[in-house]
Amino acid sequence: MNSYYTEENHGPFELINIGPLPLEEGSCMPECLLAVAVHGALNADKSNAILVPTWYSGTSKAMEQIYIGEGRALDPSKYCIIVVNQIGNGLSSSASNTGGSLAGPGFANVRIGDDVSAQHTLLTEYFGIESLALVVGGSMGAQQTYEWAVRYPDFVKRAAAIAGTARNSEHDFLFTEILIEAITTDPAFQAGLYRSSSAVAAGLERHAKLWTLMGWSPEFFRTGRHKALGFESMQMFVDGFMKRYFAPMDPNNLLTMAWKWQRGDVSRHTGGDLAKALGRIKAKTYVMPISHDQFFTVDDCLSEQKMIPNSEFRPLRSIDGHLGLFGTDAQMLDQLDAHLAELLSSPAY
Amino acid sequence: MNSYYTEENHGPFELINIGPLPLEEGSCMPECLLAVAVHGALNADKSNAILVPTWYSGTSKAMEQIYIGEGRALDPSKYCIIVVNQIGNGLSSSASNTGGSLAGPGFANVRIGDDVSAQHTLLTEYFGIESLALVVGGSMGAQQTYEWAVRYPDFVKRAAAIAGTARNSEHDFLFTEILIEAITTDPAFQAGLYRSSSAVAAGLERHAKLWTLMGWSPEFFRTGRHKALGFESMQMFVDGFMKRYFAPMDPNNLLTMAWKWQRGDVSRHTGGDLAKALGRIKAKTYVMPISHDQFFTVDDCLSEQKMIPNSEFRPLRSIDGHLGLFGTDAQMLDQLDAHLAELLSSPAY
Repeated sequence: MNSYYTEENHGPFELINIGPLPLEEGSCMPECLLAVAVHGALNADKSNAILVPTWYSGTSKAMEQIYIGEGRALDPSKYCIIVVNQIGNGLSSSASNTGGSLAGPGFANVRIGDDVSAQHTLLTEYFGIESLALVVGGSMGAQQTYEWAVRYPDFVKRAAAIAGTARNSEHDFLFTEILIEAITTDPAFQAGLYRSSSAVAAGLERHAKLWTLMGWSPEFFRTGRHKALGFESMQMFVDGFMKRYFAPMDPNNLLTMAWKWQRGDVSRHTGGDLAKALGRIKAKTYVMPISHDQFFTVDDCLSEQKMIPNSEFRPLRSIDGHLGLFGTDAQMLDQLDAHLAELLSSPAY
Repeated sequence: MNSYYTEENHGPFELINIGPLPLEEGSCMPECLLAVAVHGALNADKSNAILVPTWYSGTSKAMEQIYIGEGRALDPSKYCIIVVNQIGNGLSSSASNTGGSLAGPGFANVRIGDDVSAQHTLLTEYFGIESLALVVGGSMGAQQTYEWAVRYPDFVKRAAAIAGTARNSEHDFLFTEILIEAITTDPAFQAGLYRSSSAVAAGLERHAKLWTLMGWSPEFFRTGRHKALGFESMQMFVDGFMKRYFAPMDPNNLLTMAWKWQRGDVSRHTGGDLAKALGRIKAKTYVMPISHDQFFTVDDCLSEQKMIPNSEFRPLRSIDGHLGLFGTDAQMLDQLDAHLAELLSSPAY
């Protein structure tokens, strides 16, 4: 058991068993546990629920710390904000915490749609919720947001997709493939049967370097943003921030999420027709790429926004790039809050 | 001996022995052989010489095929165009073709400045040239171009730096470090004592994928440029183009060039003061980044251009990104030719 994925580190959260989960790939998880953190309370007619899914490697704790708070757009004094950890992230059912045949490298191939299906069961059966005032997520959270809006168009009143796409690009797929191979080519990976995360340190370090390369932006480094964050050089930033961030994580968990990320694609619902899939969305939708994102690019997001009926293009400006999601750029968070507040105050579909 | 680096594949070229070459790192190559391809003839006063250095993994053949021709800016009927293969590229003195203690992994750490020093000896002693009408190069060729203009300001009348910088960025250094590790972490690399390039196929393939990720651009793939080039999918593009391109190359050669690339920095001449180094340049200089370059970015190049006295910013527009250097975008080559023709017709410093 990996000691990183504890309630002490990432809580408080509640582990909710939603029962068996049939998976898109054909198999079935005998029981699916979702780690859920709730901020605020449901109102009488249950119309104030906001769903926040999580990104690659992230947990509900990050969402709470970076995005939620009184006076923020995601204000727990007004809304019931339900943060659901994605399957495979180490808190919800994952390679690192599941026994039997699903343990470790035997864990199932899970798709974005499986997460959304599991979340739908959670919201309807556990919370008794029949609609969401907003679904908002970044990166893989945006993938889940789009999946929600396409699959359950009546359920989702508003949607905000930050730094993510509805259909993953070939370029982004390749980036993720390279991330995966950074881990799996470490001889210590042993086809997923490694002794501990630390045994795969070399692979995890290469994975961290790739995230440094692509996660921020050339401008971030040129203008010394890494130094402003307290690191004297690239080397110290890589060692002291990026490698440290990923080092305690379970490699099989990361691989579960990477596989899922690669295949995010709402057009599976429409035989590959992306315009048709996005045309189903009823939610008032804000499409919010980050200006310097190197893999969920502004252009990729803009081309999708044009296919979403009731949508607006609301790019966020930050040279921090994709990992501006970490909350490193206070001005970007201000932009985001302003957009989300406007979205929440606009009429539902 | 690697059968890829032959005159049959990359010629014709002449191997010129310039004698011993003292290296910046402190050692000395007992003899340095430069592979040189000349197009056109020197005029009576030797005022029509153009020097073209080569980029990472490239050879003089690529420069000839993509950039040189009658009616082009680099017109061999007007100019004596001297293409010099960089040290370590497999044609000039390299790990793959040098015997003794410099063979294979024993090859020297060579810097951009060493290439320029060797080229200076070649031009002055072998060709009897005392000035260059133009130095023009792309990527590592641009690094050499800047080094020339800073180190020999009176020698270089005009300079054109395409898709490269005078001082390498931290972000770009990291990219190259990742490229290096893709090769060196292949267990078959054996600290450089591999049996053959094909033994290190897995490492070379990871290296090729990284080039696919960073060498082109997300927009290149989003708009299907890889398909327009004849490949049905990303997978086919990676396998049929990128992996094939790098597969026959010698890993130690690539590592020699990568090490050199990382350390390109004209400010070594001025104690780290980049503005002071660039301020030395007398050449009329065009700074020509490619719009969608992901590691020698437009912003990085622009910030340097502002420090060069007699310079103009002449960006090239192409979604092909850095590897537009391969000549895949005819419109970019047209832009380049127009700029170079204008530069060549403008007064020397």
